[in-house]
Amino acid sequence: MTGKRQVGMIVGIIGATGYTGSELVRLLLGHPAITGFSLASVSHKGSRIEQIYPHFLKLLSAPLKEAEDVIAESALVFAALPTGVGEEYARLCFDKGVPYIDLSADFRFGGDEQTYEAWYGKRYRYPDLHDVSVYGLPELNRERIRGARIIGNPGCYPTGSALGVLPALAHGIAKGAPLIIDAASGITGGGREPAPAYHYPQAADSLTPYKVGSHRHIPEISRTLALCAGKAVPVIFTPHLAPMNRGILSTIYVPLSEEWQVQSSDTAFRFPPSPLIHEKAGAIRGCYEDFYRNEAFVRILPDGLSAATNRVRASNFCDISIHLDASGSTLIVVSAIDNMVKGACGQAIQNMNILFGFDEKAGLSGVPSSF
Amino acid sequence: MTGKRQVGMIVGIIGATGYTGSELVRLLLGHPAITGFSLASVSHKGSRIEQIYPHFLKLLSAPLKEAEDVIAESALVFAALPTGVGEEYARLCFDKGVPYIDLSADFRFGGDEQTYEAWYGKRYRYPDLHDVSVYGLPELNRERIRGARIIGNPGCYPTGSALGVLPALAHGIAKGAPLIIDAASGITGGGREPAPAYHYPQAADSLTPYKVGSHRHIPEISRTLALCAGKAVPVIFTPHLAPMNRGILSTIYVPLSEEWQVQSSDTAFRFPPSPLIHEKAGAIRGCYEDFYRNEAFVRILPDGLSAATNRVRASNFCDISIHLDASGSTLIVVSAIDNMVKGACGQAIQNMNILFGFDEKAGLSGVPSSF
Amino acid sequence: MTGKRQVGMIVGIIGATGYTGSELVRLLLGHPAITGFSLASVSHKGSRIEQIYPHFLKLLSAPLKEAEDVIAESALVFAALPTGVGEEYARLCFDKGVPYIDLSADFRFGGDEQTYEAWYGKRYRYPDLHDVSVYGLPELNRERIRGARIIGNPGCYPTGSALGVLPALAHGIAKGAPLIIDAASGITGGGREPAPAYHYPQAADSLTPYKVGSHRHIPEISRTLALCAGKAVPVIFTPHLAPMNRGILSTIYVPLSEEWQVQSSDTAFRFPPSPLIHEKAGAIRGCYEDFYRNEAFVRILPDGLSAATNRVRASNFCDISIHLDASGSTLIVVSAIDNMVKGACGQAIQNMNILFGFDEKAGLSGVPSSF
Amino acid sequence: MTGKRQVGMIVGIIGATGYTGSELVRLLLGHPAITGFSLASVSHKGSRIEQIYPHFLKLLSAPLKEAEDVIAESALVFAALPTGVGEEYARLCFDKGVPYIDLSADFRFGGDEQTYEAWYGKRYRYPDLHDVSVYGLPELNRERIRGARIIGNPGCYPTGSALGVLPALAHGIAKGAPLIIDAASGITGGGREPAPAYHYPQAADSLTPYKVGSHRHIPEISRTLALCAGKAVPVIFTPHLAPMNRGILSTIYVPLSEEWQVQSSDTAFRFPPSPLIHEKAGAIRGCYEDFYRNEAFVRILPDGLSAATNRVRASNFCDISIHLDASGSTLIVVSAIDNMVKGACGQAIQNMNILFGFDEKAGLSGVPSSF
Repeated sequence: MTGKRQVGMIVGIIGATGYTGSELVRLLLGHPAITGFSLASVSHKGSRIEQIYPHFLKLLSAPLKEAEDVIAESALVFAALPTGVGEEYARLCFDKGVPYIDLSADFRFGGDEQTYEAWYGKRYRYPDLHDVSVYGLPELNRERIRGARIIGNPGCYPTGSALGVLPALAHGIAKGAPLIIDAASGITGGGREPAPAYHYPQAADSLTPYKVGSHRHIPEISRTLALCAGKAVPVIFTPHLAPMNRGILSTIYVPLSEEWQVQSSDTAFRFPPSPLIHEKAGAIRGCYEDFYRNEAFVRILPDGLSAATNRVRASNFCDISIHLDASGSTLIVVSAIDNMVKGACGQAIQNMNILFGFDEKAGLSGVPSSF
Repeated sequence: MTGKRQVGMIVGIIGATGYTGSELVRLLLGHPAITGFSLASVSHKGSRIEQIYPHFLKLLSAPLKEAEDVIAESALVFAALPTGVGEEYARLCFDKGVPYIDLSADFRFGGDEQTYEAWYGKRYRYPDLHDVSVYGLPELNRERIRGARIIGNPGCYPTGSALGVLPALAHGIAKGAPLIIDAASGITGGGREPAPAYHYPQAADSLTPYKVGSHRHIPEISRTLALCAGKAVPVIFTPHLAPMNRGILSTIYVPLSEEWQVQSSDTAFRFPPSPLIHEKAGAIRGCYEDFYRNEAFVRILPDGLSAATNRVRASNFCDISIHLDASGSTLIVVSAIDNMVKGACGQAIQNMNILFGFDEKAGLSGVPSSF
Repeated sequence: MTGKRQVGMIVGIIGATGYTGSELVRLLLGHPAITGFSLASVSHKGSRIEQIYPHFLKLLSAPLKEAEDVIAESALVFAALPTGVGEEYARLCFDKGVPYIDLSADFRFGGDEQTYEAWYGKRYRYPDLHDVSVYGLPELNRERIRGARIIGNPGCYPTGSALGVLPALAHGIAKGAPLIIDAASGITGGGREPAPAYHYPQAADSLTPYKVGSHRHIPEISRTLALCAGKAVPVIFTPHLAPMNRGILSTIYVPLSEEWQVQSSDTAFRFPPSPLIHEKAGAIRGCYEDFYRNEAFVRILPDGLSAATNRVRASNFCDISIHLDASGSTLIVVSAIDNMVKGACGQAIQNMNILFGFDEKAGLSGVPSSF
Repeated sequence: MTGKRQVGMIVGIIGATGYTGSELVRLLLGHPAITGFSLASVSHKGSRIEQIYPHFLKLLSAPLKEAEDVIAESALVFAALPTGVGEEYARLCFDKGVPYIDLSADFRFGGDEQTYEAWYGKRYRYPDLHDVSVYGLPELNRERIRGARIIGNPGCYPTGSALGVLPALAHGIAKGAPLIIDAASGITGGGREPAPAYHYPQAADSLTPYKVGSHRHIPEISRTLALCAGKAVPVIFTPHLAPMNRGILSTIYVPLSEEWQVQSSDTAFRFPPSPLIHEKAGAIRGCYEDFYRNEAFVRILPDGLSAATNRVRASNFCDISIHLDASGSTLIVVSAIDNMVKGACGQAIQNMNILFGFDEKAGLSGVPSSF
């Protein structure tokens, strides 16, 4: 690939004035290999990025161009667009040999057009692009990402969910029964466009679920887990809106396979729980640590700590804590990510780093801002 | 009971300067039958309530006395104390014939000392008081509350959970498998005492679970559900701390009994979900409406709405929304209460109203402050 | 006036689905004299109020009608509309003899069309209505409100500011120099319509001034103060948006007149401040207490307490605290109101109560919800 | 100085487990010249930093030592301690030739022991150290900081205030009359220790002033302004607590000197304000731009924008916006900083960079996280 390994490159962002677009800029300003930005925005074409986002004053002054111009001058293109409009840009990039990372759902289903159509109501225009596309979850797909030309960057909820469940599938800890994923997102997950659900007096000081039983991230989560489990993994998923800017917390209930269940007359429902419960949780924690041993951005928390969104805020970390229910039948995994970073832009940059052979942590060394 | 049906009575609150104590005052100031307050506080004895809570200025000026004096002059006593110290006050009240409503966990287990001891590490001092005590969930126990002399007011999480599950148990909708209750509480649930977890910079803009798998509300929830189901109901319960002042949202996963499962080749996992899913959810919603037909404070939300904490804020309502997962195997119930009102003080006043034969809504007519 | 003193009356609200409209409903549901609502909404005509605001479920079910129908069947009409559209409704009400309370700025300037036109860019269509209208600040204008047929309900900022300054003007405490009013409002002040400034991720966790030096409440504040001072009172006013739902805090700097200044060689700038400072502040506090002695909704806080918005939340109180700067030259008054209650709907109801001869506190007995 | 200009140095932090201590770590982890940390904590000695702040997991694992050991092994020492305990550490550092940067108020008054004693109630133990100490506001004192051995890092409020006023003093824009500074801080300003004022349910969703007229930052602000003005600058300062984690917004009212006042019959109080107002504001904005032309961290916002705390969040920027009141008599300056960065730790690092001859922006390149 022509862009590979070059240092001092110009990166393109289509959809630069949405929240994910501006977060890509925020993170990439600290990336040692990026020397320039080429930005496109349909809604603010002709303006400059620092007029739309004045927090970039003195940091970046860049005009907002046409997408075609951005593609022409960039070594890699990020598309930070709504689902449904990325294929044309992917076509252009692919035909020019420019690596393309799509942050929408458009390239998350590879050749599985049926699922994409069922949930997004739209057919593929360029099936060949989907056939070569790679699902950009580095912890699952790193080798394929290295050679990718089109990357479908994972959704925010699927990232938090999959990272929390993959080791349990890989180690045979999970039974077949449906997993229950109860997750909550900060309001930036709704994007930059004002809407009643995100209006401060409506969103503040309240908690509410939405799209219960039918959120579009369900098939993406199932599909990702199936890649690891080698078979369909039924999932029940309930997203909530929480009164915070950033973060996704996923509390995941994984029925234990027989060999991992705590079986003893001593496990009666009691407090504090039986030491056997504690022991088994420790063993599972060990499997998780093992699974993520070489991952820079996944942290398995020590016994006694629960994952919390403020400890990963503004960073690319995914924190995971391991618990067992009091009866020893169900694994409870809690994962925390920043929806805008590991759940979107940070992961996209991680994918770029892998693809270009950069240090995987380049541009992603931001320390969590825990308060 | 001597105090019964009298209008214009003095009510006593022991522990008046904690959050539940002050919330009792806030609500009771609007109760038409209450003409006076007698307040006790260990930590602020000798001060006046409006010095501790200046938002009561011009509304209530009352000295903080000894508990014994309060008991002597009140027609009913609320104990808004930490768990573990209520028995002595209950003894005094009972022996004087003063109805006693305890907002701690001390009188929630009736004769089941074993469970109380297992989870709270303490034995009963006066088992006779527990034998006559009544668990104060009006929607389950109204008749017994009418004649009660000691009421154990339910916990906040158990209230939201039980109200969300009782109809499913009563109608045979729930299968035996463990229920999963994923719930989040506003920070007032932690009480008035400053502590690291409730320190603003730690609690704000973040979401975190706590006591995963071993919260002390587990046995109370199980026990309450068993009262309705007639058998043990295993429960997996995960509480979270959410960055809001008030409210508990419980998202409850109830595996459906065979007769209630959606069984059809048409229910494949898809979007939008099969109309059969929608139909079945409607039938279950009907059962819930039926179950709560005569309840003033439970609202079964119409199709398309999800329960949210801001719609019950500062009111005694419990909102419940009914959903099915996309495969039709699991009922997802979402319940929302204000933890300080229906989850504590409002329910205690509801119990008082029932016990004294007042209008059950007296003092509880506050309209939710949705913003 | 035909509607006067009748008990069990129907009240009309035009603009019932905006924030002030729905807050009027919330408060009036607790008003003993109101037996019915007649509601109009342009944007949701044909729907029912509980569909737009489901927190009213089980409390009020009412259709949203045409404004004309509302006027025809109501004993009094509140107009909760944007500034600029109220005159026609006022005309209709006035001609039918229905008292009309306008919550916009349309009737706040009486005969002073020039100021209205200068700041709102619009001329009066019916000057006669403005000539008979009364500015509805009860603490200033109670007698005139009693006989009013059209009331211009004060703005939120002007209410907090005027109540904080009036006693200083009345007692000759204030010097002529410009007053500086630095105020911050919760986000509900921006109304129900989503917009970038009120989008949760933009508004949360941040503080920002707006319309510095040129906010339209400036002439209203000046005019109100002039009514008391008997001469023009120049005002510098800076509003801010604070990350909270409700509340306006106004910190007001009032240069002291010579007779009230602390003049002593002992007042050098030091810590703790000179006892003379403390004494003088006490004397001023006494004047304030005196001024508001008979007011039910104004609370002068005792020495040592500062006004805070959470202590008036959801109530009709205005809390005022009195301080002096360290040099003794400037009075610092802090006033706190709930912008939706004393700053809008509560005050409108207070005006209705005065106008109809009801108890001035009817429907306004809500105790502040301090957490 | 021995430590100067060395690359790859170990930095010491005394008081590493407070909020400022941990924020120093967060920022310094990204500093290219720092290769190691030596950390001291009285309250958590023997633990490791990542146990106290688990968001440092995988980023820093370091034991918490005795202060003496830290001083022995560090090339520079930051003291992130409460005011009143720093002198002994300063003594040790000074005598060993280790540069010392104190983030408390202990070294902000130089030789002016009288003011320090008046406001902090304590005398100097080592006056010689104060005589050589430098007030670490780089925009005012850069040259003296270069050669400093003891730096008194400015307070958070004084930083925001001084940066907003210095150009007006330098250019003769300000008249002699007292400046009024109305400022609000996020809750991290109160530090890590839980206390009632910072308890989430007390602090959230509310705004409150504190220490009105007598905050200890008053003499520091006056003194700093006097350094620039060459004479005493009387200041009236009111701090508020705002419901946000980080940020200080200062709204500053500066009476204009005669030559800068807008004087014209055309400036009558009106809306929109006279074009003369706009012109004059532009001229003042030009002076501010000129004053800060070479400053990396001060941004004078263009006409039409107001400073807001979210645009500087987690960065070392100070944003300043320039406004005039409607009558043209008073300059209104709004400045925004992150209280933990430019208001404390970022500025301390900026001082270190100047002192060691590093790039002044090293470790401070974090882009504001505007949402």
